Amino acid sequence: MGITKEAILHTPNSNYSYGYDKDTLNIRIRSKKGEVNKVILKIGDPYDWQEGGAGGGNLNASGSNWTGSRNISMKKEAETAYFDYWFAKCKPEYKRARYAFILEDDEEKLLYGEKDIVGLGNKDDEKHLTNMGNFFCFPYLNNIDVATVPAWVKDTVWYQIFPDRFANGDSSINPENTEPWGTEPTWKNFMGGDLQGVIDNLDYLVELGINGIYFCPITEGSSNHRYDTVDYMKIDEYLGDEDTLKRLIDEAHKRNIKIMLDAVFNHIGYHSKEWQDVIENGDSSKYIDWFYISDINDVKIPVDKINKDNLTYETFAFSPYMPKLNTENSEVISHLIEVGKYWIEKFDIDAWRLDVSNEVDRVFWRKFRQEVKSIKPDVYILGEIWHNSLQWLMGDQFDAVMNYPLTDAINDFFCTNKISASKFKYMINDVLVSYPKQINEVAFNLLGSHDTSRVLSIAQGNKDKVKLAFLFMLTQGGSPCIYYGDEIGMDGLHAEGLELHRRCMVWEEEKQDKEMFKFVQKLVRLRKENEEFRSVENEWIEADDKSSTIIIKKEDIAIIINNSDKETIIDLPKFLQNKTVTDLYKEIDINLSKEIKVKPYGYLLLKVNQ
Amino acid sequence: MGITKEAILHTPNSNYSYGYDKDTLNIRIRSKKGEVNKVILKIGDPYDWQEGGAGGGNLNASGSNWTGSRNISMKKEAETAYFDYWFAKCKPEYKRARYAFILEDDEEKLLYGEKDIVGLGNKDDEKHLTNMGNFFCFPYLNNIDVATVPAWVKDTVWYQIFPDRFANGDSSINPENTEPWGTEPTWKNFMGGDLQGVIDNLDYLVELGINGIYFCPITEGSSNHRYDTVDYMKIDEYLGDEDTLKRLIDEAHKRNIKIMLDAVFNHIGYHSKEWQDVIENGDSSKYIDWFYISDINDVKIPVDKINKDNLTYETFAFSPYMPKLNTENSEVISHLIEVGKYWIEKFDIDAWRLDVSNEVDRVFWRKFRQEVKSIKPDVYILGEIWHNSLQWLMGDQFDAVMNYPLTDAINDFFCTNKISASKFKYMINDVLVSYPKQINEVAFNLLGSHDTSRVLSIAQGNKDKVKLAFLFMLTQGGSPCIYYGDEIGMDGLHAEGLELHRRCMVWEEEKQDKEMFKFVQKLVRLRKENEEFRSVENEWIEADDKSSTIIIKKEDIAIIINNSDKETIIDLPKFLQNKTVTDLYKEIDINLSKEIKVKPYGYLLLKVNQ
Repeated sequence: MGITKEAILHTPNSNYSYGYDKDTLNIRIRSKKGEVNKVILKIGDPYDWQEGGAGGGNLNASGSNWTGSRNISMKKEAETAYFDYWFAKCKPEYKRARYAFILEDDEEKLLYGEKDIVGLGNKDDEKHLTNMGNFFCFPYLNNIDVATVPAWVKDTVWYQIFPDRFANGDSSINPENTEPWGTEPTWKNFMGGDLQGVIDNLDYLVELGINGIYFCPITEGSSNHRYDTVDYMKIDEYLGDEDTLKRLIDEAHKRNIKIMLDAVFNHIGYHSKEWQDVIENGDSSKYIDWFYISDINDVKIPVDKINKDNLTYETFAFSPYMPKLNTENSEVISHLIEVGKYWIEKFDIDAWRLDVSNEVDRVFWRKFRQEVKSIKPDVYILGEIWHNSLQWLMGDQFDAVMNYPLTDAINDFFCTNKISASKFKYMINDVLVSYPKQINEVAFNLLGSHDTSRVLSIAQGNKDKVKLAFLFMLTQGGSPCIYYGDEIGMDGLHAEGLELHRRCMVWEEEKQDKEMFKFVQKLVRLRKENEEFRSVENEWIEADDKSSTIIIKKEDIAIIINNSDKETIIDLPKFLQNKTVTDLYKEIDINLSKEIKVKPYGYLLLKVNQ
Repeated sequence: MGITKEAILHTPNSNYSYGYDKDTLNIRIRSKKGEVNKVILKIGDPYDWQEGGAGGGNLNASGSNWTGSRNISMKKEAETAYFDYWFAKCKPEYKRARYAFILEDDEEKLLYGEKDIVGLGNKDDEKHLTNMGNFFCFPYLNNIDVATVPAWVKDTVWYQIFPDRFANGDSSINPENTEPWGTEPTWKNFMGGDLQGVIDNLDYLVELGINGIYFCPITEGSSNHRYDTVDYMKIDEYLGDEDTLKRLIDEAHKRNIKIMLDAVFNHIGYHSKEWQDVIENGDSSKYIDWFYISDINDVKIPVDKINKDNLTYETFAFSPYMPKLNTENSEVISHLIEVGKYWIEKFDIDAWRLDVSNEVDRVFWRKFRQEVKSIKPDVYILGEIWHNSLQWLMGDQFDAVMNYPLTDAINDFFCTNKISASKFKYMINDVLVSYPKQINEVAFNLLGSHDTSRVLSIAQGNKDKVKLAFLFMLTQGGSPCIYYGDEIGMDGLHAEGLELHRRCMVWEEEKQDKEMFKFVQKLVRLRKENEEFRSVENEWIEADDKSSTIIIKKEDIAIIINNSDKETIIDLPKFLQNKTVTDLYKEIDINLSKEIKVKPYGYLLLKVNQ
């Protein structure tokens, strides 16, 4: 059969080729699964010519007889449904590189270059191997172009709070018509959660072990979710005031907890002064160019009478309550950049989560990044994007996105058992090979959010399944986030109009699942204590479809999961056989034989003793 | 066999998916060559749900049961060595799109999405076809993110001038030791070419028909090529003064000729005041951070004694004469941006060609684009890049690059006959499918430059071959450029230290190839008169390896080329058979039968009469 040439892929300046740091170039290539035995990266300086010499005349970029390259063996990095991925890093001495790949199977040897794939093993090999014109180019490793992420994020475990529903700490600022805590949520009702409630429970969060809080919007909005901003510069009066927020952030920082706020810049709220001015003054409004309006007359129709199928102004989705902002307008840009800086400068927040960030233009996001990083270089910029996000993650826009593809994989394997162990492995690997490594290291991993059903509902109430989901997420690289209440076994469906995923936090201890809390707490602690769990490198020892078990090796730790309702006996991999290991979860030492029994939905985190 | 899934490729926000204008999305996909019969683009608004309704609750981005998509048939766009490419455009009503592809061969039907490839034709088709989570996303067509190119460029034919070698119009400013016009060039000698010489010969250029001049550097430099800039703000005194340049540009503009200058921003010259200040003042120089210096002591070594294999400061290639500029330094940025604007504001130039642009950081180029386009929105920004350049051509950096891959294809097919007709077709198509369409429309096409051997030398003196090369380039979309002297049959090798490609322009009429001039002149005129030749759409009717003939249909024009030294009889395609056509080159009408005789190296440009 030979090697399927059409399956080989490498793309310059992408997840396949990027600066990892100011000296290091990371290179990846894919080939059809199971076909290729060996891949060599042939790489060198484009100006390094034997003939003509350094700086000599032989600088023709499409020239032949180039002698500057050396060979680096590539490592098989990951396997997905259709492909094998190969990886190598290197530090080009002069920061410049031309490179191609040599792929081998049992029968043939190919040179894969930018313009051509040529067979090797003939007398004209030398010609092909020195034809730099067919080599890919990484022209120069400019430090400023390297995607640089904040160092603290990979050591952070987040806790997501939906402000109206976490805790009510100050009933004096309750909205009118606040419903009793625990009322079944709808699109419309308010429960009175506020910032003081968060302050009051910071020690609960410390006990859980998290060290970052992601807040859904806390600025003035009209709805209980507050994604329909009324004033970007004002804390919603039902949540608290500037003093409350300052105390909150101060107390959080004392506890080494970082704070992330939600920036809703794609659209504004119907009740904002800017949109109201447009309604009032029409074409003569000073905010008329802040929006995309095709027919100003319709703007004046009462909002509940507007025909959603024939909107005459652009909105988020088809919601007349959320007019889309024109982020190409210089006043809008100035205002939103001011907002981005204000909350950092005045309140010392540590991160911005950017709502519907994929629908806002890239020119705006590049400016946003430059401006906020100029005042706080290690601020974390997290985009809300559900699909492939590489175009935002090459260093000029976001540090990470909300990693819903990982959520899907975890749900499908652990919670609903829709997919096999191998499919799960492929889905996990697909995410990892889609981005630069440093981006994966700060990926915002989550089991669910204010936009999804809760993980326990997806698992149809099976807490064993939820535990495995937590266990997997918390032993993977990235920056994991716990959606408030998941740690105490709350459920809540978000489907067919139901808003049950935004129920009030349960504070009555007798209604909290304490066992779940302890489980999550322990895993958070183990993650903190063992940097292996924070690494994005997985060595998949097993992903067995029949028994639904997986074994992942992370340096000297093995993660063993039995994702089935049957006890299973697992043949241990070589590096564990007959070893003394620490069961990190149980905190005991075990002397292993060649196999081990794992209970239904059982798990083992085994660290080989030195 | 079925469809090779591993060969299918679509990448968001790339040459496969981009805004063509503010309303239009262009979508491309590739499949293994010859396998797929039909491709459907399934596309719709992500928020268009039957259930839940517009603006309703069903906005979960990974949701199923999405009903918003419609089918668009994709056109087979191009064939390359390994792949078929398929293309469709569409105008999403709300500027948002989710999309996937349905590919069919005789045996099977696949849905290709972002996360998965699934077989269709079963009872669960509906589930897959409405599973938006597996659809690619083009979140919002933001106008500012669309790659917008200057409208005039696709109608421009350039003429490249190497200033020291085109014409001497003012011997009073000759460099000392100017050699007699026509002396064999070396790396070192000067010939006295200047700006007045260009002014004196503008009418020659008008006669040729060109309407753009690309100048290699005219600012002060130390060498005859002036890529070692001494002062970015000063015209080299051997070329003229500000008044001469103003007159030149004024006279050119009167003749509708655009002017492009060469910006050498990757490095500066050894004799610049900035580098000299570093040599003199070492670490205390105010320019110390303009450069990358690892050991200041070595900087003081006489330049001809510096060890090129162990440079202690970064340079272009390994040339100690060209220290690399630190374009991350704010003073360097300011200075170079000032330079970029200065020549536009003061001299009204129309375009910048950016030397070694691939080695300068992207943050700088984005700023450069914003700044120069802010003062002259239709300025053309052309990068010097020899390899795949997509990362610079997505709208935020350059409008085009020097299209050397096209040069290679033309050389290999017409000049050296190294490749077959089909390989030629594949190489041409490879370039076209590598970029957005609007970028191809302004690609800087060339047969050679100051950095290559002349086309006549590559063709080993065979002028028939050179004519075919010109004919092909001038009947293709893009913005073609003629290297000074090629139009009068000059040759000149650039290899093994020879600089013969930079010989002085031959002005003695008896030494000029007048027939070549007339040939090029006529093709330039035909290009101007027939917009078909300026279109990037090629319908390849034939690319016959045996006879080495090609037939390309561009709307109602056929380009027929016999690239061999043998007469050939060509079976005419249906749309030409028994038609009356105009032979555009000979300017006569012909009544065609079913075949036509084409002479060795013969060509026909036939337009079907209406």
